Amino acid sequence: MAECAGGPKAVKYGVTKDYVLNTEIVLPTGEIIWTGANVLKNSTGYNLTQLLVGSEGTLGIITKIVFRLIPYPSHNLLLLVPFKDANNACLAVSAVFRAGITPSAMEFMERDAIDFVLKYVDVTLKIADDIKAHLIIEVDGNDPESLFKDCEKITEVMNQFGAEEVLFAESAQQKAELWKMRRATGEAVKSHSIYKEEDTVVPRAELPKLLSGVKEIGRKYGFNSVCYGHAGDGNLHVNIIKENMSDEDWNTKVPLGIREIFQLTVSLGGTISGEHGIGLVQKDYMNIAFNDVQINLQKGIKQLFDPNNILNPGKMFN
Amino acid sequence: MAECAGGPKAVKYGVTKDYVLNTEIVLPTGEIIWTGANVLKNSTGYNLTQLLVGSEGTLGIITKIVFRLIPYPSHNLLLLVPFKDANNACLAVSAVFRAGITPSAMEFMERDAIDFVLKYVDVTLKIADDIKAHLIIEVDGNDPESLFKDCEKITEVMNQFGAEEVLFAESAQQKAELWKMRRATGEAVKSHSIYKEEDTVVPRAELPKLLSGVKEIGRKYGFNSVCYGHAGDGNLHVNIIKENMSDEDWNTKVPLGIREIFQLTVSLGGTISGEHGIGLVQKDYMNIAFNDVQINLQKGIKQLFDPNNILNPGKMFN
Repeated sequence: MAECAGGPKAVKYGVTKDYVLNTEIVLPTGEIIWTGANVLKNSTGYNLTQLLVGSEGTLGIITKIVFRLIPYPSHNLLLLVPFKDANNACLAVSAVFRAGITPSAMEFMERDAIDFVLKYVDVTLKIADDIKAHLIIEVDGNDPESLFKDCEKITEVMNQFGAEEVLFAESAQQKAELWKMRRATGEAVKSHSIYKEEDTVVPRAELPKLLSGVKEIGRKYGFNSVCYGHAGDGNLHVNIIKENMSDEDWNTKVPLGIREIFQLTVSLGGTISGEHGIGLVQKDYMNIAFNDVQINLQKGIKQLFDPNNILNPGKMFN
Repeated sequence: MAECAGGPKAVKYGVTKDYVLNTEIVLPTGEIIWTGANVLKNSTGYNLTQLLVGSEGTLGIITKIVFRLIPYPSHNLLLLVPFKDANNACLAVSAVFRAGITPSAMEFMERDAIDFVLKYVDVTLKIADDIKAHLIIEVDGNDPESLFKDCEKITEVMNQFGAEEVLFAESAQQKAELWKMRRATGEAVKSHSIYKEEDTVVPRAELPKLLSGVKEIGRKYGFNSVCYGHAGDGNLHVNIIKENMSDEDWNTKVPLGIREIFQLTVSLGGTISGEHGIGLVQKDYMNIAFNDVQINLQKGIKQLFDPNNILNPGKMFN
């Protein structure tokens, strides 16, 4: 259902972490504990479960997970919405939610992303030359009529933001092709050039400022980027592509640009990773998201769980 | 919308904590920090936000909260379902979810709870003598027809578990009266007698075992209990009432009974508080939910945030 941690379904069903009720972990000291209980609601002690989720193997090794499950919806409808202006596509995203609709997925793809992926996967899709971005929007539920009504409302909103003709996926095969295209985007872009992938996330309504800011920063430092991702979550993957950039520029200018992109996300109320995490690659940027007090608290937690620093040493923090 | 932390809406919309995206906290050291970012998805550093939520003021003072908001559904339908057998009411709860329906609220009330509350609030409700429990079930959404279909399915499930005639709340006033009754239950039971309230929580499917176990433990130690709560969440409030019990029995036998009730919840995969928390009253029972390793990790976190132990000292842990 999801390509990555949050995945395209997060917009309706909530973030994956919210489905993790309990985990069994092996502590660096060798002890095995459960972090919570197998219940939907828990006010017993500190929330060790959510402390472990997303801790990137630095606090304990998760060996079992208890999830909350929800009924699988019996129906879904899928729309592909082309825009001549990528900014308008971003503006339309939060307007759908303000209209009272919560899609089960709402994905953004810049034109370049689609062009790359159509070379990479066997999907037939004709796109007019002047189209600059697409939204892929899915609604799901148990009542088809109710979903058709949602799609009508969504189409109205799209038209208010200057969308071109909305493509309604008519068959299971057409739906599968659109998802195949979306899911292969990352690989397609990355197979085209040396790249750096950033996992920016902002409040949904700030997406237009994020997209235009990323492009402006790219112009300033001389790099191209291909943007796509989980627009409904405010989560935009920014793939900076090297193409013909010199090694020197790639190694010196791009990190400065990335730092500015992250400063922008934080200034918009967002942060530097929505779902991919920090690891080794992003840890130098942690001081954009956090001040010393915040960093030191996190380092203190690491020290508490792993006093000998044997679990993923050097990840997340310097 | 909710009487308490999780509230009756948690069953569909998830636990309140899942709506907390970010908090501003004052640390015991006087520093003010944000615990996260204002985003739906966040993989940047440890989840300090969820560590603070439910920490009962022992780690920091929360001074601002950023919530995720969802559209308010335009319609709802409310059912009151009487049962001659409280165990059947509990069995019916998880069967509704297995049938693919996720109600927006699913509340359980023992007969005694209703009898107490009808003396306490001005609500007219005729209940046959042989009714032992009720479920209050709400569905909500934007499409009334779809909700009627859900109610039909729910009624089918209720009939499979021997429900008596399902009452369909026909007016806004009737809905308001049913919710008034449910919401006043706690106060009504507590005004009747000296009491101890336990906030047990188990996996939803274990509710029947929890209810029958509580009654059996009550018989063993000679106390009565009135049970009600958020059945859809597996969260049952157990009000142990003193009535004519001697002070000695109240002070010696009841704590042993409570310990057994909590041992039962933990053995069923549950824990000792679903939404009320630990505070001073339940902290002696923390060693039922947690072993020394789990307790020491939590004490370590407390020590890290509050080295001088000035925030709510003595709460949660001994």
